[in-house]
Amino acid sequence: MSEQMQRIVLASRPDGAPTADNFRLESASIPQPADGEVLVRVHYMSLDPYMRGRMDDAKSYAAPVPVGGTMEAGAVGEVIASNSPAFKPGEYAFGMFGWATHGCLKANLLRKVDPAQLPITTSLGVLGMPGFTGWFGLTEFGRPKAGETLVVAAATGPVGSMVGQVAKSLGLRAVGIAGGGDKCKLAVETFGFDACLDHRAYATAGDLREALAAECPRGIDVYYENVGGKVLAAVMPLMNPHARIPICGMISWYNAGGLGAGAADADITAPAIWRNILVKFLSVNGFIISNHFDRFPQFMTQVAPKVASGEIAYVEDIAEGLENAPAAFMSMLKGGNMGKQIVKVI
Amino acid sequence: MSEQMQRIVLASRPDGAPTADNFRLESASIPQPADGEVLVRVHYMSLDPYMRGRMDDAKSYAAPVPVGGTMEAGAVGEVIASNSPAFKPGEYAFGMFGWATHGCLKANLLRKVDPAQLPITTSLGVLGMPGFTGWFGLTEFGRPKAGETLVVAAATGPVGSMVGQVAKSLGLRAVGIAGGGDKCKLAVETFGFDACLDHRAYATAGDLREALAAECPRGIDVYYENVGGKVLAAVMPLMNPHARIPICGMISWYNAGGLGAGAADADITAPAIWRNILVKFLSVNGFIISNHFDRFPQFMTQVAPKVASGEIAYVEDIAEGLENAPAAFMSMLKGGNMGKQIVKVI
Repeated sequence: MSEQMQRIVLASRPDGAPTADNFRLESASIPQPADGEVLVRVHYMSLDPYMRGRMDDAKSYAAPVPVGGTMEAGAVGEVIASNSPAFKPGEYAFGMFGWATHGCLKANLLRKVDPAQLPITTSLGVLGMPGFTGWFGLTEFGRPKAGETLVVAAATGPVGSMVGQVAKSLGLRAVGIAGGGDKCKLAVETFGFDACLDHRAYATAGDLREALAAECPRGIDVYYENVGGKVLAAVMPLMNPHARIPICGMISWYNAGGLGAGAADADITAPAIWRNILVKFLSVNGFIISNHFDRFPQFMTQVAPKVASGEIAYVEDIAEGLENAPAAFMSMLKGGNMGKQIVKVI
Repeated sequence: MSEQMQRIVLASRPDGAPTADNFRLESASIPQPADGEVLVRVHYMSLDPYMRGRMDDAKSYAAPVPVGGTMEAGAVGEVIASNSPAFKPGEYAFGMFGWATHGCLKANLLRKVDPAQLPITTSLGVLGMPGFTGWFGLTEFGRPKAGETLVVAAATGPVGSMVGQVAKSLGLRAVGIAGGGDKCKLAVETFGFDACLDHRAYATAGDLREALAAECPRGIDVYYENVGGKVLAAVMPLMNPHARIPICGMISWYNAGGLGAGAADADITAPAIWRNILVKFLSVNGFIISNHFDRFPQFMTQVAPKVASGEIAYVEDIAEGLENAPAAFMSMLKGGNMGKQIVKVI
C-alpha cells in the first residue's frame, strides 16, 4: 500500500456563510512526481478570503472548486522528491498545493523560497500574494501622493497592513478600519497607521462616516477597497475630487449569495455609487493579482529588504493542523484572526 | 429707459421631472461691457442634460443655479459692443451666456467662432462641449482598440454620435442604444453605427441585455456611460475582462431625487456593480469635461477638419425662440429631440 496524504475537499457548496459540513478531510495516495514535476511536503498553508468565492459556482474570474475537489490554497514546504533539474530535495518551494499535506506540481509553477533569508511563512503573507496585492493595488491604481489621505479596511490583515505601511512610507496619512479594539491598537502601534477605527463601534454607515470624517480632515484621496458594504457606504461621501478606488475584494458581500451578485444592501445604492464616481471624477479599478505576476520581481526587490530590516512589519496568526483549517477559515471570514491567517500543516 | 433683454430664470426647484412652473421669463436691462468685457447678442443657445443637475441644490461638481438666477447655458452670437482688444463688433463668440438674449462676459471667458468655416451652431454641439465630451471620454478613459466592441446610449445625441463615429474611425464595432425606431435608423444610416437598439422595445433590463448580447458577440470592451439605469443593468453582465467605462452622465437617474442620490433602482444593485468591477477588472472613470479644457485645442485640430469634410456627421434639432426653451428642455430630458438640441434665440 502506497504512503498516504491528507487533504480537505469541498463536500458541498455553502448557502451563505460556510459551515463545517461544507468541508471533508480525506486520505489519498501521495502522488509521485512525473517528468518535470516536484513533490512537496507542505509545512504551512495560507487561508485567504478569496477562497470563499471559489466555493460558489457563480461565474467569476476563476473557476470554482468542484464539489469533491481539493480546496485551493497557496502553501510552502520542503521538496521531498523532484523530477526537475530546477529543484532538489531539501529545498523549499511555494505553490498552489491546496488544503493538503502534500502537493505535486510542475517546477515552473513553483517559486523557490530561501529559509535562510526570512521565515518561510512570509511567502504566504507579507511577501506572498496578499502583500503583493496590497503593494500593487495601491501603487498601480491608487496613485498615492505625499500629503494625501488613504483609508483601508481590514487594516491588520496582510493586505491592509501592507497598504497602510506603503502609504505611510510615501508620506500619506493612513487611516485604518478594523474589527475590534485590539486590532485597532495593532494597526496603530505595529503597522503605523495614524488612526484606526473599530467598525463594530458604529451601528450605522452614517455613524462610521462621521468618525471617519473626523480622522480625515482633508477628505479621502485613496480608498483601497477590500470589504464593500457599510465601510464603502461610509467612505463614499468623503471621497475627494479625483480620488482613486482600487478594488481587490469585497469580503462583506462574499456571503451574500454568490459573491454578492444581485444582493441588495441597505447602506448604499447603485445610483449613489454611480453618482459619486461621476461627480467626484473617481477612478475605480478592479483587479486580481494573478494578472499582474510580471510585477512580482519588482515587488520583491522593493519590499523584501524592508521586511528583512523590520521597516515593514508583519503579524501572523497560525492555526495548528490541517484538520483545523476549516474552523480557522470560517473564523477568519468573521474577522477572528489577528494578522495573516496561516495553517501549520506539519 | 435702457434697452431691454430677455432671460429665463429658475423660478423654483423641481421635484422630479421639471415642469413649466420651474421657469420664468423675465426682462432686464441690457448690461454695458465693463473694462475687458464683451457684449454679445445671442443667436443660438445650447440645451444639455447637465442643466437638470444645476436645478437641484444637491452637492455636485458645480454650484446649483440659485432660485431666481438665470439658467445656465452655453450660447453663441454676435459681438455688439466690446471693451476688449480681443473682440470686435461683428465677430462671433461662444460663451456661457445662459438662457438669455444677451450676455456680457470677460473676453478671456469667450471662444471666437468663425462663421466662414462652419455654421456657428456647431460650436454648441459637434464642435462644442458635447462633441468634446464624447471624443475626450472615449479616447482618454475608454482606451479604444481596433477590433473591440463599444456600446453607447443616447446614440443620436451630440455626445453619443461623436462617441460612435470616433469608435468606428478607430476600427471598433459600435453598437448604439436609442429611444425609438427613427433614432435607431439615424444612428445606423447617418452616424454609421453597426447596430442600434431601441430601448423602448425591451420591457426589462434582461430583455435589453439579451438583444445586446446578440449584437455584441465578442462582448463589450467599452461602455461609454451617459444614462445609467436599465441600460447600465443590461450592459454590466456583458462587459469583457479589462473593459473600460468612462462616465460622463447618468441621465436616467437625474430626476430620481437630487441626481439619483440615495435613490434605489430595481435593475441593478450596489453589490452587483462593485462585483462586476472587481471580477472583470473594470476601469471606471467619472469626469466632467470642464476639467479638461486644456485638451480642447487638440480636439479641434483632430475633429474640426473631419466635420468640415463631412467625415463626421452631425444632426441638430432647433427650437425657435427663447420663450420655448423650457418646453424644448423638458422634451429633451424625455428624449423628444432628434440630434443636438439648440434654441434659436434671434
